[in-house]
Formats: sequence, structure tokens, C-alpha cells
Amino acid sequence: MKTYCSGVCFLISITINMLFSIHVYVGGGYRSSLTWSLKAAEEAEAVAAISCSGHGRAFLDGPVSDDGQPVCECYGCYTGNDCSHLSKGCAADADSGDPIYLEPFWMQNAADTTVVISGWHRMSYDYADHNMMSIELENFIRKLHSIAGNAITKGRYMVFGVGSSQLLNAAVYALSSTPSKVLASTPFYPVYKDQTMFFNSESFQFEGDTNSWKSNNSTNNMDVIEFVTSPNNPDGELRQSILKGKTIYDHAYFWPQFTPIPGPSDQDLMLFSLSKLTGHAGTRFGWAIIKDRDVYEKVLKYIYLADMGISKDTQLRVLKILKVAIKQDTKLFFDFAYDKMRDRWDRLTSIFSKSTRFSIQKRHPLHCNFFHQTRLPSPAYAWVKCEREEDDDCASLLKSERILGQSGSIFGAKDRYTRLSLIKSQDDFELLLQRLSELVSREYDSIKTI
Amino acid sequence: MKTYCSGVCFLISITINMLFSIHVYVGGGYRSSLTWSLKAAEEAEAVAAISCSGHGRAFLDGPVSDDGQPVCECYGCYTGNDCSHLSKGCAADADSGDPIYLEPFWMQNAADTTVVISGWHRMSYDYADHNMMSIELENFIRKLHSIAGNAITKGRYMVFGVGSSQLLNAAVYALSSTPSKVLASTPFYPVYKDQTMFFNSESFQFEGDTNSWKSNNSTNNMDVIEFVTSPNNPDGELRQSILKGKTIYDHAYFWPQFTPIPGPSDQDLMLFSLSKLTGHAGTRFGWAIIKDRDVYEKVLKYIYLADMGISKDTQLRVLKILKVAIKQDTKLFFDFAYDKMRDRWDRLTSIFSKSTRFSIQKRHPLHCNFFHQTRLPSPAYAWVKCEREEDDDCASLLKSERILGQSGSIFGAKDRYTRLSLIKSQDDFELLLQRLSELVSREYDSIKTI
Repeated sequence: MKTYCSGVCFLISITINMLFSIHVYVGGGYRSSLTWSLKAAEEAEAVAAISCSGHGRAFLDGPVSDDGQPVCECYGCYTGNDCSHLSKGCAADADSGDPIYLEPFWMQNAADTTVVISGWHRMSYDYADHNMMSIELENFIRKLHSIAGNAITKGRYMVFGVGSSQLLNAAVYALSSTPSKVLASTPFYPVYKDQTMFFNSESFQFEGDTNSWKSNNSTNNMDVIEFVTSPNNPDGELRQSILKGKTIYDHAYFWPQFTPIPGPSDQDLMLFSLSKLTGHAGTRFGWAIIKDRDVYEKVLKYIYLADMGISKDTQLRVLKILKVAIKQDTKLFFDFAYDKMRDRWDRLTSIFSKSTRFSIQKRHPLHCNFFHQTRLPSPAYAWVKCEREEDDDCASLLKSERILGQSGSIFGAKDRYTRLSLIKSQDDFELLLQRLSELVSREYDSIKTI
Repeated sequence: MKTYCSGVCFLISITINMLFSIHVYVGGGYRSSLTWSLKAAEEAEAVAAISCSGHGRAFLDGPVSDDGQPVCECYGCYTGNDCSHLSKGCAADADSGDPIYLEPFWMQNAADTTVVISGWHRMSYDYADHNMMSIELENFIRKLHSIAGNAITKGRYMVFGVGSSQLLNAAVYALSSTPSKVLASTPFYPVYKDQTMFFNSESFQFEGDTNSWKSNNSTNNMDVIEFVTSPNNPDGELRQSILKGKTIYDHAYFWPQFTPIPGPSDQDLMLFSLSKLTGHAGTRFGWAIIKDRDVYEKVLKYIYLADMGISKDTQLRVLKILKVAIKQDTKLFFDFAYDKMRDRWDRLTSIFSKSTRFSIQKRHPLHCNFFHQTRLPSPAYAWVKCEREEDDDCASLLKSERILGQSGSIFGAKDRYTRLSLIKSQDDFELLLQRLSELVSREYDSIKTI
């Protein structure tokens, strides 16, 4: 018996050894490879695993409970520990341009878009080439434009900014003589005016609407700087310069998810923003593409003097995100983003088509060189007009119906117009559609009662 | 024999099983817990494991070899695939304020300072409280100041900036009436002048040295904004306002590693920078501590209009870094940083003490409330004076000796002075000492030859 056991037991235990050995070998790759990054990775996955019912998120740098554990931050109209409770009568918020509509894509591509930053990552002011900007990132951005087909970058200079916000003003400084008049065509993005007036430079001053200025002034354009937003915020129109002088092309929305791409833009000074491309508004990053060397050097000097460039950790994260956005040229990202916007426009137009009281901007089909098809634009915002004579404050009217938008006057237009954001979270969009449906359906009730 | 083996072998194999079981159990937790963050963590550790001989680093966003693998970026005078080759006759670079001297601390504390950022981390422009700034981070900064004992934060407002660089100009805008005169006492940090002149606002203009201005003007201070840098860059002096009017206290260097902390600063507007506190210059982050609500709101508006705030990923990383800097109040970080600076000053002064041709700034002992001792300052820069009549361009003289510093005139002082940076990497510092020793030792050779 003893002998029997000795043989069998030995065989069994050797077999178990072998099994364990294989198991350890297979799993060992992970275990042996991670040391200093493991704790942070586990923390990040633990906080991401906290359930907020899909109506909120918990973050590493968010509020914590009494016992120090991260808690849910609920979106929009949701409350409760796990964001499961929808507040009755909560207003549909279509006010801000927060591009949360792309969050699901980044969650689906978690493994490829996570970035791990060591405590000693790039402590220097500069990269090894004594440059504030990552050459690797610059190369990826050039590749991105050639894939999207929306801008010529060959032989052009590039400057990174803290969002394109910072580059708007940097561009005005770079182009201004003393003093230059700054113009934009209504309806226009209000930051052009707010920045130019706030920084109150002797080199420039804001003069308002381009068309009005042109009708009252000789078109000696040498001392004029024109902002051209294409596609335009708020109405999504593809625009061209009116004065053909010094021009800043704000192309924040010139991406296939928002507009057909008829061809690459080849302007002297073009601005782009990560926020409206990938939805990472919280990661303040934008870039300028510039033809003229002198203008490039002035923009670069502005960025250097303003804050010595963009955080190296931000540049690393942007690099990782863009690598996925253009992964193997599969266009997976742009397909996802365009499908989302097109679906939202399809549902939105079907509501407004039933209304005589409210209208939205006309959309004109164009050939898109990116998707190789003729298609309608799918702008980030609906530019809503209240058609009835008495409804001359459209935003207030909608607010009384618990729909929050931005008044036309914010964009230099009439308050008969309102901007509604279509790029927020799915929760926000669904609530917006629900409120709009109720509002439009009541037009028929009133007709019936006549 | 068989029986003997059976017993022994069984015992051995069971023991092996137990060892493996424990091993697998211990390791299993890691393996099972990580999913989407694993790939990025492995990439980060792989690139960090690339050997650059301690004279360089490989980074995730750095240059890559032909086969796509990251390669070493060599520091200063080192070259070669693994940065092991020291270039003969390479100049000792003591020019920039790159605070690489703290890199070893962050490598030693890798596990606690690594940050893992998911692809969907904080995509919104704002935190959940509709604020551009992380409240968690703000709370940690207040805690940091109470531990360092260098600033009163209770009842004060705080604004984050893209480095303190951005806050310098934001503060000038917030304090300026139309027009304000901006002053700083020579020798001063040149960015005060460069920014104020570049932004060329109707609201302010740079007027140069405070003392000269005071001697030629009535001290009606209402339209004057005074920069007070304490400790001062370049000379490390603790300074007070001269005009007692509107003042911006630049406290970038007011930390225990650079100066005794006599007590907490309680000025109306104080600026601090991550760069000079933890050495993360590449992570553009600074903060303002402000008494007056109106001034606070103007600084906040500047940051919002300039670029809509600081990247959320940057704020997350800063939070992680500061948590370690004040970990359990153990002062480990400040001990490390001060020991490093004190050691560098001890070695530097022993060289200059042998010289009659070159002198450095006098340092005055003060009681430090942080280290509970009377001690000498250990400034970030040596402010070198060439004593000989004929040596009226000290930087050029040192450059001819292959020592790179910044000329006195850059700081509004005489070129008889030069600033040498003492906060760069150990390699840079060792080479600087070597060159200085050779230079000073030659004074004796010349005496012997007389």
C-alpha cells in the first residue's frame, strides 16, 4: 500500500507540479512584467468599475465618500448614489458644446486609449530637440489630416495650443498690425469678440459683423483680420472669406462627422481642436496650420510667452488617442462619430418636419471625399428659429418648456434664433428629443381645439 | 530504495506544489484584476526599462527606431544608442531652469506617482460642479501650504494656470486700471517684461526697475503694479514690496529646498508653480492664491477666456504627485530636495571660496519653521560676479571656458553678473563643478607664474 501510494502519489504530485508550472508560465507574463505601474492600473480599473447606472462616472480625482472611496458624479438630470434616479421635470440641457457623444467610443476602445504616465515622465520644459512640441504628435496630426482629407499640411508649419481657444488669440496677435480691426460674420462664435475685447491690445480691436463693416468701409483689407468659421458655429454652414484679406480659418468642426469634406482646406492660417474631433474637451489641445514662416514664428512666440507650451502629459495622451482615431486607416472612429450624428439629425428633423412654429437650418447635400458619397451635413448644433411673430425670444420660450439653449444674440443674431447642442450625452439628447416632441405635438392640439 | 524515494520524492513534490500554490495565489490577484489598463502599463514599463546608462531616458512619445521601438533621448553631453558616450569638450550647460535635479526622487517613488488615464477620463470642459478646476486638487494644495508653512490659504481664493507663467499676465490684467505701470526690481525674471510688452495692452505698460521709477516719480501707487519675486530669480534674495501698492508676489521658489521658511506669506496675490516645487516643468501647472474676490474673478475670467482652463489629465497627474509630496506629512520629499540643494551649494561654495576672480551671492542664515533650524538659503541659481575690472562680460568669459549661463543684462543687471542654474541633472551639475574647479585652479597657476 505504501509502495502503491508512493508511486501514485508521486505521479499525481508531479502532474500537479506540471499543471501549475504551465499555469504559472502562462500567467507569468503579466505578473512578472508589471511592477511600479500595477498599483495605479488597479486603482484606475477599480474606480472605472464603480457602477453609476450609465448616467454618471466615478473618477480618480473626483469626490470621495467618508471612507475615502470615489463616488459617482451623475450626469445632467440623474441623482442618487448610483445615478439611477431621474429628477422629474429636469430641464433638457442643450446649452453647452460638451462633446460627450463620443464617450462610448473611447470606452469601447479602452485598451488602446489608456495612457500610463510615470512620475518622472518628461519633467523638462522641452523635448530632446529643444522643442515645446512633440514631433511624434505633430507627425500623427499630419497623417490624420491626410486620412481625413480636410487640410493640406505638406510644407506647412504647425503650432500646438491650449485648446484652439488659445490659438484664436495667438493668431490675432500674429496677424495684427497697429491697430487691426477684427471681424466675424454673424452669427459667430462669441469667443472671438470676448477674447479680442478682454485682451484689449493696442494692436487690434473688435469691429463686429464682416458684412456690415464691408458695406460701411472701403475694402482696404490690410488692417483687417477676418475670422471665418467653417463649418460655422452655430449654424454649420461651410463658409469662405468675405474680405479676402488676412483671415483666420477656424476649422474646429471641419471633420467628417459634422460635414461632407469636399476637399482639403488650403488656407494660410487654419485652426483645429481636439475637443470637436475626438470629444476630449477636458484635454485642452488644439493646433494651428500655418503657411507663412513669419506668422508661424509670431504664433509660436505667443504660446511660449503665454505659458511655455502644452503639458507633456497632455501631448502624450493626445498622441495615444489620435493613434486610435486613425488606427490602420480603418476609419472606425469617423464611422462611429458620423453614424451617431446622422442618427441624431434624422430623429431631430423628423420632429421639426411636423412643426410650423419652429424651424431648423436648411442642410445642403455635398459630395464627401472621405466617405465617398454625396451626403447631408450633420452639424454639432441645431440653429432653431421661432417662426411666429410673437415668439421673438426663442431661448426664453424654449426655457419655459424646460429646454435649455443659447440665445441668438450671443452669436450676434436675433433672439428669434436659438442654438441647441446635439453633441452632448445620449441621456441629454434623448431628453431633448422628448421635450421637443411634446412641444411640437401641442401645435396639433391647438389646431384641433380651433 | 524505492520506498525511501517514494517518501522523500512525495515530500519534495508536495512542497513544490505548496510553493507554486502560494506563488500562483499571490500572483493571481494581479492577473485577474487588470483588463483594459494592462497593455498600456506593460508599454510604459517596457519603455522605462530601456537602458540609457543613466544619462538619458526613453519615452512613450519619443523618437523610435526603424523597427518602431522607442530609443534613448540622451541628456546634455551624452550620445550613443545607450547614452554612454560623453562628448569631449562639451560645454557645461547651466543656462536653463530645467528642474531635473528631482527626477531621482520620482523614480524612487514610481509606484505612488504613476497615473493611469482611461480614454474616456473627464471628456467634459468642466468637473461635475461646473468648475474648470478640480476641488480635490485645490484641497491638496491648501494642505500642502499648511504643511510647508509658506502661505496662508484659509479664506483665500485659488485659481489654476498653465504654469505660473500664464498667471503672471493674468494677474497683471486683473490688477490693471487704464493704463497701469508695471514694475520689477532688478535683477528680475525677464518674463515679466517680455509678457507685458508682447501683450501690448492699453491697460498696462512695462516701466522697468522699481527703485529707479520710485526715485523719479511720486509714489502715487494707484496705477502701479509691482512684481515682487521672493526668493528672487536670479539671486535668491527674500524680497518685500518697495511701493506698497498693487503687488504680485511670485513665490515660485518659496519652498524649503531653496530657502528657510521664516513664516507663511500672507500677501494679497501670491503665485506658485509646480515646476519649481516638484520639478515637473513639463507639466504646465501653477496656481494663484488671492484675497480679494473681485481680483479673483478677473483672474478666473482671464484663464477662462485664454484657454478654458487646465487639461483635466494634467490636474489628475498633479494631484497624484502632490499626494506623494505630502505623504503622511513625513516630509520625505522636502528632505530629499533640500539635501540635494544643500549638497550642491556646499560643493559650489568650496570652489568659489578659493577664487578672487569670481564671487557668488552672499547667503544669510534664517530660522526655517519647516525644518525647525536656522539654516542658509540654497537657491536654485548661483548669481556669479566677475570681480576683475576687465571681465565686464562674465557670461562670455565663462562661455569661452565652456560654461553656459545667462548674462546679467537678461535680468536688467550688468553683464558683469551671470546666472548659473543649480537645479539641472546631476550630470550637468558635476560637469559644471569640474569646469569651475579647473577655471578657479588656474588663478593659482597664474599667481605661481608671477
